[in-house]
Amino acid sequence: MSKVITPREQDYSKWYNDLVVEADLADHSAVRGCMVIKPGGYAIWEKMQQVLDRMFKDTGHVNAYFPIFIPKSLFEAEEKNAEGFAKECAVVTHYRLKSSPTDKGKLIVDPEAKLEEELIVRPTSEAIIWNTYRNWIQSYRDLPILVNQWANVVRWEMRTRLFLRTAEFLWQEGHTAHASREEAIEETKKMLDVYADFVENYMAVPVIKGVKTPNERFAGADDTYCIEALMQDGKALQAGTSHFLGQNFAKAFDVKFADKSGKLDYVWATSWGVSTRLMGALIMSHSDNNGLVIPPRLAPTQVVIVPIYKGEEGLKTISDAIQPFIKALRAKNISVKFDDRDTQRPGFKFAEHELKGIPVRIGIGERDLANGTIEVARRDNLTKEVIQLTDAEAYIEKLLQDIQENLFQRSSDRMKNLTTEVNSFDEFQKVLDEKTGFVSAHWDGTPETEEKIKELTKATIRCIPLNNKQEDGICVYSGKPSKQRVLFARAY
Amino acid sequence: MSKVITPREQDYSKWYNDLVVEADLADHSAVRGCMVIKPGGYAIWEKMQQVLDRMFKDTGHVNAYFPIFIPKSLFEAEEKNAEGFAKECAVVTHYRLKSSPTDKGKLIVDPEAKLEEELIVRPTSEAIIWNTYRNWIQSYRDLPILVNQWANVVRWEMRTRLFLRTAEFLWQEGHTAHASREEAIEETKKMLDVYADFVENYMAVPVIKGVKTPNERFAGADDTYCIEALMQDGKALQAGTSHFLGQNFAKAFDVKFADKSGKLDYVWATSWGVSTRLMGALIMSHSDNNGLVIPPRLAPTQVVIVPIYKGEEGLKTISDAIQPFIKALRAKNISVKFDDRDTQRPGFKFAEHELKGIPVRIGIGERDLANGTIEVARRDNLTKEVIQLTDAEAYIEKLLQDIQENLFQRSSDRMKNLTTEVNSFDEFQKVLDEKTGFVSAHWDGTPETEEKIKELTKATIRCIPLNNKQEDGICVYSGKPSKQRVLFARAY
Repeated sequence: MSKVITPREQDYSKWYNDLVVEADLADHSAVRGCMVIKPGGYAIWEKMQQVLDRMFKDTGHVNAYFPIFIPKSLFEAEEKNAEGFAKECAVVTHYRLKSSPTDKGKLIVDPEAKLEEELIVRPTSEAIIWNTYRNWIQSYRDLPILVNQWANVVRWEMRTRLFLRTAEFLWQEGHTAHASREEAIEETKKMLDVYADFVENYMAVPVIKGVKTPNERFAGADDTYCIEALMQDGKALQAGTSHFLGQNFAKAFDVKFADKSGKLDYVWATSWGVSTRLMGALIMSHSDNNGLVIPPRLAPTQVVIVPIYKGEEGLKTISDAIQPFIKALRAKNISVKFDDRDTQRPGFKFAEHELKGIPVRIGIGERDLANGTIEVARRDNLTKEVIQLTDAEAYIEKLLQDIQENLFQRSSDRMKNLTTEVNSFDEFQKVLDEKTGFVSAHWDGTPETEEKIKELTKATIRCIPLNNKQEDGICVYSGKPSKQRVLFARAY
Repeated sequence: MSKVITPREQDYSKWYNDLVVEADLADHSAVRGCMVIKPGGYAIWEKMQQVLDRMFKDTGHVNAYFPIFIPKSLFEAEEKNAEGFAKECAVVTHYRLKSSPTDKGKLIVDPEAKLEEELIVRPTSEAIIWNTYRNWIQSYRDLPILVNQWANVVRWEMRTRLFLRTAEFLWQEGHTAHASREEAIEETKKMLDVYADFVENYMAVPVIKGVKTPNERFAGADDTYCIEALMQDGKALQAGTSHFLGQNFAKAFDVKFADKSGKLDYVWATSWGVSTRLMGALIMSHSDNNGLVIPPRLAPTQVVIVPIYKGEEGLKTISDAIQPFIKALRAKNISVKFDDRDTQRPGFKFAEHELKGIPVRIGIGERDLANGTIEVARRDNLTKEVIQLTDAEAYIEKLLQDIQENLFQRSSDRMKNLTTEVNSFDEFQKVLDEKTGFVSAHWDGTPETEEKIKELTKATIRCIPLNNKQEDGICVYSGKPSKQRVLFARAY
């Protein structure tokens, strides 16, 4: 089964695409740049949503829903934001089709149903939300507003890749409103921490928390905080962003509040989001040439049990013997699938479960049953062990934890190995080309140097790490003085 | 607080709109016909989603996600479906904006970024999904496909009402594929039962299960099953539909499967959906002039406790005394809010919680504390009772059940009282105008009569009830022979 996946070593990009399609995660659709998220992929996304949603609620947020369309006049109100997204906007211009007068059975856009004002399909919702917040906020008593939205957004991309960059994607976008600058910044950082917690402790992907350079900021933000991860091929992937928006949107949409003394001021804002792009990060962090590897805490099925039997009687014997064990695992909230399909052979099932990344696979045959044993295979390192069925419950519970930790450890080691301090531009280019990964280098702080380096090497400044060590140095490119190193990388 | 709501008797339609806005459920947006679902409304929708999603999974379905856009050529493939929705389609024609050459800071649609083929914003997803299923289905082994999607859809409506009819709305749409006609019909009926179960047992709204006349069928369906509810004003509301699509979409998109003998045949289909329209049904079934009434099983907060105190010390005494009770309720999975805001007085809080429909409100003052009592107010019938705190845990648990049952009973009684058998067209019109509700009448079975009655009375055939009694009669309009009564009503 896994023969259909191109090996990583041969073509990393093709390996990724093969894996996404073959492991039943997503597929290309008939719509340019849009994907179909298949049931196998959506089930993982649902797990992600559940965990994140709980984290958002635990930090005081509530969900709401705003329109998918943004009238052009609202969209352009915050100029930097509008400028940043203008080139990627899908635009609705008509609201009706009619029968073609010439082609029977065909439809044409009804020219008489042209909208007076065009509608933008949201690439992000600050404009429509801040236009709404104007009606929700009068005084400090109405603040803070801590709202999140789960939604689809559209950004017209010329070069797309499943999950990583698609014209339509699913995401959540938090949009909060505050009475003070300090409170808004605190919120921005708090949500960055929530994201880092999720990505590290559930996705088992280590991240660097940092802040973007002005060049790389979200259009309309005063500051963009981010978490950056590193994939197997040494390329970086921005896994989540949290923006301090200052009073930019409040000014664009005239949203003011009266403080306790009655004085009016503009409201302070944040926004923060993660998307189905996280699916790409998950896949590219852990998977191998046999297919997907899912960390246990996000696996829709954590344990699959494959009976190896002859005839219906044989299946019944195994099934009866294993039921108490299955029940016991489920009582511990471990999701178990008993794969008793009679249409496929065990070998096929093994390969399929491997391809689909189920963390633990248990095989049990009639001889095992006689010996009171089961064979346990772990997906992360592909090792197998025979254990006593009587010990299995505690063993599996611990094994799932071990796999989760091992995946995180493995990714952390990789990130550590692929983070290199360099002190010259030669070294910078050499590391990027030969070793890949994060390059930690001094930078003179100017957008010109940043641009020039990007032009020469395709590497961007991924972030200025939070709590960065301050040290005197000279910029690897310009030779001008620098006070700190920043992280460069080629990125998804 | 509830003074802002127009009384039902005065203007039912305005009462509804006031209530939706004031109870923090939804609001009009800057986009024509689109609503903002506010946190209070979204929290109820989330509860609905959770229950329905579990019901879908318990019946073997999985979730997936398909693109929001449908290329026009795919959209028009199933002709009846295309014709049915053509007049309500939002159409994307361009994929980029650019700076206006004349107006600084303004954007215009870039005429050079015109799409070769227009994209329809999905009004329903049969077309894009069946185009995808063609790649998923080769043989009977690939069937059934039991997929559901949670999504937003757009149907351009000229006259909109919050939740009931909006240009964009949220819904779920199930799309299943089967190897036989019988299995597809079974699925269609099964999902109708799931909907009826949900609406009756969670929303506390009784429904009539039935089948639509050909006139009222979903465009592209061979049969549309529905559940019909009755609102307080005697108007009907279609709460959910389940369609048997025959082989129509399989033929339009060339989706065939090989059976066990290798013979090729077109695949059989169903689709079924409920939407945020259910929010409208919930609101209009139970609420009153004081505001919203939420059935306990869908209430985000089931019990609110309002302390009546003087000073911080007083609050602390009450708070300490009530904590074990709160804990005990939460241990029973009852969601409790302790409303200790010091910015509002108890009277304000009482009115607010009434407006927002929290099923049970508990008041506790310092004197109550001394007596070991609490005051319990139920939202459904606005009665109050003083009970011993020691009995309260069991009392509240039972009270929530009682309220759920009472709401269903009340709505059932209303539906029963507002269902009238008539035997003449005079009577038909009189009942519709004066009594309102469902009118059960003989109909000759022709679309012409159906149309004529609609034209004269604005009443439509809501459904032919399932397991309908067969009886000889004559059509109330045409006087022609009829074999059964059908349900007419004016409807939302």
